[in-house]
Amino acid sequence: MQPKKCDLIIKGSYVLTQNDERELIEDGAIAVSGSLISAVGKRSEIEVEWVAEETVDCGKSVILPGLMNAHTHVPMTLMRGVADDLPLLDWLHNYMFPIESGLTKELVELGARLGCAEMIASGTTAIFDGYMYEDAVGKAVDGSGMKAVLGEGFFKFPSPFFKTAQEAWNAIEALQERFADHDRIRTSVTPHAVFTTDPEQLAESMELAEKLDILWQIHAAESVPETKLTLETFGKRPVQILKDYGLLTKRTRLHHCVDVTDEEIDWIRDAGAMIAHNPQSNLKLGSGICPLTKFLEAGVNAGLGTDGAASNNNLDMFDEMRTAAMLQKGFLQDPEAMPAQTVLDMATVCGASFLGFEDTGSLKAGLKADIVAIDMDKMHSKPVYNPLSHVIYSAGGQDVCLTVCDGQVLYRNGEFLTVDVEIISREAEKAVKWALKRLESR
Amino acid sequence: MQPKKCDLIIKGSYVLTQNDERELIEDGAIAVSGSLISAVGKRSEIEVEWVAEETVDCGKSVILPGLMNAHTHVPMTLMRGVADDLPLLDWLHNYMFPIESGLTKELVELGARLGCAEMIASGTTAIFDGYMYEDAVGKAVDGSGMKAVLGEGFFKFPSPFFKTAQEAWNAIEALQERFADHDRIRTSVTPHAVFTTDPEQLAESMELAEKLDILWQIHAAESVPETKLTLETFGKRPVQILKDYGLLTKRTRLHHCVDVTDEEIDWIRDAGAMIAHNPQSNLKLGSGICPLTKFLEAGVNAGLGTDGAASNNNLDMFDEMRTAAMLQKGFLQDPEAMPAQTVLDMATVCGASFLGFEDTGSLKAGLKADIVAIDMDKMHSKPVYNPLSHVIYSAGGQDVCLTVCDGQVLYRNGEFLTVDVEIISREAEKAVKWALKRLESR
Repeated sequence: MQPKKCDLIIKGSYVLTQNDERELIEDGAIAVSGSLISAVGKRSEIEVEWVAEETVDCGKSVILPGLMNAHTHVPMTLMRGVADDLPLLDWLHNYMFPIESGLTKELVELGARLGCAEMIASGTTAIFDGYMYEDAVGKAVDGSGMKAVLGEGFFKFPSPFFKTAQEAWNAIEALQERFADHDRIRTSVTPHAVFTTDPEQLAESMELAEKLDILWQIHAAESVPETKLTLETFGKRPVQILKDYGLLTKRTRLHHCVDVTDEEIDWIRDAGAMIAHNPQSNLKLGSGICPLTKFLEAGVNAGLGTDGAASNNNLDMFDEMRTAAMLQKGFLQDPEAMPAQTVLDMATVCGASFLGFEDTGSLKAGLKADIVAIDMDKMHSKPVYNPLSHVIYSAGGQDVCLTVCDGQVLYRNGEFLTVDVEIISREAEKAVKWALKRLESR
Repeated sequence: MQPKKCDLIIKGSYVLTQNDERELIEDGAIAVSGSLISAVGKRSEIEVEWVAEETVDCGKSVILPGLMNAHTHVPMTLMRGVADDLPLLDWLHNYMFPIESGLTKELVELGARLGCAEMIASGTTAIFDGYMYEDAVGKAVDGSGMKAVLGEGFFKFPSPFFKTAQEAWNAIEALQERFADHDRIRTSVTPHAVFTTDPEQLAESMELAEKLDILWQIHAAESVPETKLTLETFGKRPVQILKDYGLLTKRTRLHHCVDVTDEEIDWIRDAGAMIAHNPQSNLKLGSGICPLTKFLEAGVNAGLGTDGAASNNNLDMFDEMRTAAMLQKGFLQDPEAMPAQTVLDMATVCGASFLGFEDTGSLKAGLKADIVAIDMDKMHSKPVYNPLSHVIYSAGGQDVCLTVCDGQVLYRNGEFLTVDVEIISREAEKAVKWALKRLESR
């Protein structure tokens, strides 16, 4: 039999397919044609059946699906480390807002380019973003070769970007139109939170999501103070308001869900809504610990997110997986809680569902070729008993040696193939001076 | 003025001195002569005042003191990832014990060499270890160029290594004699835990520590089940027993202290005993969350440890610092808890006190030259507002580009100068086959 032609063959010591059987292939390989996976199997089989334009042998490595970051504000990468260890309102009013109120489209794009470069180098191929000037974010994502769901944020009060929510909705429609034919970029309706919007406004925005047939995301029940504020303002808890106004739907994506009741978890499950878990941001901002295990036991689909780099302070999904796995065990005093496989599922297959990219998240013929490899030839990766354990408990984003999205190689052995990191770095340094000047004059 | 001669000058963008003023030097440099720091200052000053045999310019970097790992079982690196997500007793009886009961001195040394290599590459220069065959660990540490406090563990029941505690104590005396004149290696008396020893035996072992004038370490109050077991066996909680038998002293080092009362914290403080905090191990094993903030508020000196790689699963102190900082904030729902500076103190100055190495832990003339640099020219390190924030919240052990211990360069830009990582890697792979065979026949 004549071997079939493909564009790319990727080889490695182990392939964590994340297919329905969660199959682990030793000495595995993946054939890629265009943006799609043609075949996944033993190296020996793939080598016989396929002949490729280009072959990447990752050596001692684990190959896994590209990671799905379910919640981030990628332009905020520009504010990484500007302020830490502060009460939320101090952090927001004295650091974030003074900088954000001066942001231009160019700076938003720069932050997004920086964040995309970081994520490419640490194995993330897709993000669910929410910020302002998302057309600039879309431009950065497009150029990087990653995929994204973009969300133009809005509030009940004027923001530095929009006087009214209607203006933001117009921007969402324009965004949707602009990227309508784009393979890798989608749009979502993005109210900031229940306590920074009005229920009627939220209901109206859901109509927009239905009209455009896109996802609807919101920060929800992030902390006890948020619940308190929402109770004071509206007399109800955040998730109760979402339920009462018909905002828990299949297109609803809830970020955080730290302060929720068992009943609220059931409502979310019954509606087919999904949550994004952001353990590091929840810890660092003092928001608390999400009852993630309860959500999963109830049958809620959960993705995993880093949140923005200003509250994390990196966008490393390996770090986030490790924290997600460890935190529930410690919090519940149960070492069996959140096993490694469950966490990897959140960052891959469940993350893909969360983002609404149903054609990725595992390594199967016919799905998009979103593929990552980590180098296992490092001292912290030895010895190897179980590659899954290594991915979750020993590895870090810096182990990534290959990142492929939609069949395109974005990053390989330290080299960025789609973004110019020197220019980004230089511009980011300049932006620091600009930001510090804004903070001085606040 | 003629410049003075020294052996090594290290330069970097920032020096986090960890001196009494916690001074940050921009464009800094350190002059090293023999095993000691000769001067720390601005690059421009050091360059004028000192001339060196060798100069290492770390470029865009942060230089900080070598990190002090306050609690580990370094030979267990050989069991990294062999089993996770299991109840403690299942993990111990079905995985750890079957392997450990067959360990030879050679395998213990191999595990220690592997762990030391990992730690050198991730910026750790000193460890407080506890295991068996600690002479083999001492050999590995000696060869690596790191420094260590060694602890030969013992129980009230026969272990695979010693029939009686007396045999272990003899080994400790031999260890103490062997390394008496060693600059970098010290010894400690190391009962495993209150529930695996007898109070009388503990009291006797403390006499040994006093006789040899060395530290006395023990796992204490690691989890609620440990407290329960101790109460059932002895009718008292672990720390109460330590107090009643005069085992809370200035030479006492307590590992974990997760399940403690406020009163017990005061007893520990009053005695001048110290604790090692191991947040990742506590989370992963489901032990719970240490009330670290209470310990620090009470005035207890706390070091930071990774515990063994079988329950972590890496020995990365940067990872551990990040977790330590974030976990208390989330647990207490207080973003001001455990600021970055406090965590860096634990891993450096406080860690040095914990290990009893009073001549290291900060970068000051006259102290030992235990120095680490991290590369800041990576996408997850940009932009830079505050180098301290980066070290704690953005960096990882893989950012380390230079590790110096007692003036000797151990690691530089991926190159190991004291250990042969190829041989270690090859032998570690062979050990996996041996371990799996033992698990098969259990």
